[in-house]
Amino acid sequence: MILADIGNSYIKVYQKGAVRSFEVSEGLKRYGSERVYYISVNNNYTDIPKNWTDIAEKIELDTSYLGLGIDRKAVCMAVTDGVIVDAGSAVTVDVMQNGVHLGGYILPGMQAMMGAYHSISPKLAVTLNPNVELGVLPQNTKDAVNYAIISSIKSMIQTTARGKIYFTGGDGKFLSKLFENSIYDETLVFQGMMKGLEC
Amino acid sequence: MILADIGNSYIKVYQKGAVRSFEVSEGLKRYGSERVYYISVNNNYTDIPKNWTDIAEKIELDTSYLGLGIDRKAVCMAVTDGVIVDAGSAVTVDVMQNGVHLGGYILPGMQAMMGAYHSISPKLAVTLNPNVELGVLPQNTKDAVNYAIISSIKSMIQTTARGKIYFTGGDGKFLSKLFENSIYDETLVFQGMMKGLEC
Repeated sequence: MILADIGNSYIKVYQKGAVRSFEVSEGLKRYGSERVYYISVNNNYTDIPKNWTDIAEKIELDTSYLGLGIDRKAVCMAVTDGVIVDAGSAVTVDVMQNGVHLGGYILPGMQAMMGAYHSISPKLAVTLNPNVELGVLPQNTKDAVNYAIISSIKSMIQTTARGKIYFTGGDGKFLSKLFENSIYDETLVFQGMMKGLEC
Repeated sequence: MILADIGNSYIKVYQKGAVRSFEVSEGLKRYGSERVYYISVNNNYTDIPKNWTDIAEKIELDTSYLGLGIDRKAVCMAVTDGVIVDAGSAVTVDVMQNGVHLGGYILPGMQAMMGAYHSISPKLAVTLNPNVELGVLPQNTKDAVNYAIISSIKSMIQTTARGKIYFTGGDGKFLSKLFENSIYDETLVFQGMMKGLEC
């Protein structure tokens, strides 16, 4: 079975336990003749192959949250208890308890944060340094910005953390290293999709 | 004595205990014939009246921080022990201990954060709501964004807090209400300037 998670720019394809990422048009073409179960955050794609099946209606998350994106739903479905952090262009943080979604919030991703500093002043347009020292107060502008970006994401997740923290997404691996009780898993969204498909 | 703090867009003028704010060109014109002691974050103003005195060299803060802005220095000089939060287009957070500046960091201000969300997706371009409920996990996108903005600033300041927290700047009054051990004071920068002038 092949699963696909279609985003705004990229498509992630899951096959035999491995995840591959492609630009959307390339992924649709490459797997065009395969039987694929997919979800998509974007309904504007008109060239999805006919033998692909949208499984959005199978992704049923127990939640009161209005307007939760289909990919975020799938990621949450993969976890029964814990905090789920999907760190990409945005960083979504969601809480699951006994299979119920309790709510969540959205931080800007690290690149978007950099853009925010740049919009305030060119002086704050420093280089991203994810390895900035978090144990001491910054002593220059570059560190002051990087410390704030990384520390604010970290302290928010810490405030929310109940038990295990599951990380996924492009910056998930890096962020997971800031926590002891963390797991990084790039297949979370596909685990949720498989749960929906009951396989 | 009249004091002025010249920023990139506005000038704040302190006279007889009161603070007034003007667009830079208007402030320079209005107080053009007065004797004014000032600091300026921007060295590009060519029309500063001749009877105004730049007191930047009097603002001597004990710090290892390289490139601390003159206004941030002055604000810190006003406090011997505590955390100083200047919440404007950026939110600077600095720590003073026994009159020594231990370091600090820079968060994007609330408007710049909104811009960051907008840059990620139009779906995240919600209305700013500083009164979002912080005690419960958000249940929709608008709350998810506002909760993240306010909570991330709050949790960062909490992480840094040692003793009293001094707030100043446009959003300082609002943010100060999120903390019990806080003081809002729009005159901090002028107190620092007066300390520099030894008056």
